[in-house]
Amino acid sequence: MKQPLLMDINSTVYLRNESLIIIDRRCFPGEIRELICPGCEQVAQAIEDMAVQGAGDIAITAGYGLYLAARELERNGRESQGNAWDYFQAAYHRLVNTRPTGHHLKSLLDKILNGLETEQDSWSAEILNGIRKAIEKQQRRSELTGQWAERVLEDGDTILTHCFPGPALLHMLSLATANGKKIQVIASETRPYLQGARLTAWSVSELEVPVTLISDNMAAYCMDQGMVSKVFTAADRIAMDGTIANKVGTFQLALAAQYHKLPFYILGYGGPDRRCYSAADIPIEIRDSQEVLSCAGVKITGEQVQGFYPAFDLTPPGLVTAIITDRGIHVPPLIQEYWSSRD
Amino acid sequence: MKQPLLMDINSTVYLRNESLIIIDRRCFPGEIRELICPGCEQVAQAIEDMAVQGAGDIAITAGYGLYLAARELERNGRESQGNAWDYFQAAYHRLVNTRPTGHHLKSLLDKILNGLETEQDSWSAEILNGIRKAIEKQQRRSELTGQWAERVLEDGDTILTHCFPGPALLHMLSLATANGKKIQVIASETRPYLQGARLTAWSVSELEVPVTLISDNMAAYCMDQGMVSKVFTAADRIAMDGTIANKVGTFQLALAAQYHKLPFYILGYGGPDRRCYSAADIPIEIRDSQEVLSCAGVKITGEQVQGFYPAFDLTPPGLVTAIITDRGIHVPPLIQEYWSSRD
Repeated sequence: MKQPLLMDINSTVYLRNESLIIIDRRCFPGEIRELICPGCEQVAQAIEDMAVQGAGDIAITAGYGLYLAARELERNGRESQGNAWDYFQAAYHRLVNTRPTGHHLKSLLDKILNGLETEQDSWSAEILNGIRKAIEKQQRRSELTGQWAERVLEDGDTILTHCFPGPALLHMLSLATANGKKIQVIASETRPYLQGARLTAWSVSELEVPVTLISDNMAAYCMDQGMVSKVFTAADRIAMDGTIANKVGTFQLALAAQYHKLPFYILGYGGPDRRCYSAADIPIEIRDSQEVLSCAGVKITGEQVQGFYPAFDLTPPGLVTAIITDRGIHVPPLIQEYWSSRD
Repeated sequence: MKQPLLMDINSTVYLRNESLIIIDRRCFPGEIRELICPGCEQVAQAIEDMAVQGAGDIAITAGYGLYLAARELERNGRESQGNAWDYFQAAYHRLVNTRPTGHHLKSLLDKILNGLETEQDSWSAEILNGIRKAIEKQQRRSELTGQWAERVLEDGDTILTHCFPGPALLHMLSLATANGKKIQVIASETRPYLQGARLTAWSVSELEVPVTLISDNMAAYCMDQGMVSKVFTAADRIAMDGTIANKVGTFQLALAAQYHKLPFYILGYGGPDRRCYSAADIPIEIRDSQEVLSCAGVKITGEQVQGFYPAFDLTPPGLVTAIITDRGIHVPPLIQEYWSSRD
């Protein structure tokens, strides 16, 4: 068994020769294509274009964007330092506005920016330090979330997932295997970007866990046939009332799971967004509708047809069995207690 | 406004020079590609490969397959007539086994076969006559179903559809427009064959009715946003207890509609299958899993990933508001009364 490439962000997002290298997730698993981002703008573009994916990984990548902005200032020398802060603020806003639904991006950039010593010579070193700490924290969170999640798995379970729920899913499956539980996975492909097919199904197969791919519209049939025992997805943002924003299609799965009386678990990593009280506080990103009007780059409908592409949806807490974070297994309406538990 | 190509089967499935021409639906709307079927086997293959679609149109196409078998016997002359009936039976079984879920195919072939006079010289002429009658009957059913369905539409409605519900949908929309009702349509793309994108959205746009394409996983979000007022799908088979077998994804839509208290209508054309009492009597076709492992011909996941492709699913009658047929608007649990009403 090899470690799946997507288990560690350092394998797919890293610095080389003053540029950020992103292994483009849109090309997985057929091709390992490097996207070379020499500056902040290219990083922002890569995030917008979904070369990187998942709220946590997007945040780290944006952090590197800020790092590249700092490096550019430093290369241009002292003379440019006068309006350095303005330049830096512009870079921050460019990055924050790339993907509005997940809150990790803004949280991490705010944390980095607020921590900078304005008197300091080298912002870039400070930022890099902040990114490294964030990566370590995220990896620890993924492991702990995976460990808690593994407790709810039973030998013989078949779990259904949607989109790519990140490394916690892979940690959960690895640990279950180590503990002698035989688990199978069904992954829904997740149109239009096919993260379920490209990222989840492939990564799970690298763990040598049996995995079956279905189209997004087949989940309820599989449940009806008794093929699914539990559902797991991640969350791009969790509100303090337990509302889940995640890749579009999650809500539909939760409705089907409820009808079939199947547990529906959220891999919630670092818990809810403290400044987000309910669904009304979560902006849903509406992406370019051209993306649903084509499939693998080929136009699939008539010229007069419009498209609509909401990238995320909202699942109310009543449809969720539990939110599993790095701190434990939470009842959704009480998820705000995450912040009063130990850190 | 031009009449959509898919409103009349004679435009896409017809005889020319002793061959059946099928305008391949998998290439719509980008390309009008003729599939030339010189014999029964090629017709069976085209049905299996989904060059034609929809339970009624599949049945007519299979009828032409039987016609081509009869023509072959006639061309080979009297000497081959000894085992003509065996040959004919083999052709019948080949065609019946192409697509098991819809019942129209077997019903039509049985009717044609049972009506043949074994003493008759020209089976082919008899069969062609049977096909023409079936086409006329189907067209009349589509019109009547569309007329009944139009009655439940209200000015300002946005209807959500899945797969291609056939000409009744187009008749319904045409009539609504003629009656001054402004209707909009949202079509779900219907992976893996994309009938919603290729056939429905395109045909509706040809009627100049505003139509928006979404991926299959976006329907519940659209409902939640108040963008949908009613849902309409067709049925490949209706059981006497009101269970609906239709393109996979229909069940999931019905669950989402119920949660959002939206009416869910079935365009039921010629009513239930009299020999099918409940869900247990409906065979669900499981297609080649390679079809879900690729998208527009491109492999989308890892080599070790399995696929699963149920082509249809079952929606229980309790999730359906009404089944609309050529005879009226029926309460699903009482759909068997279709057969005691006038023909």
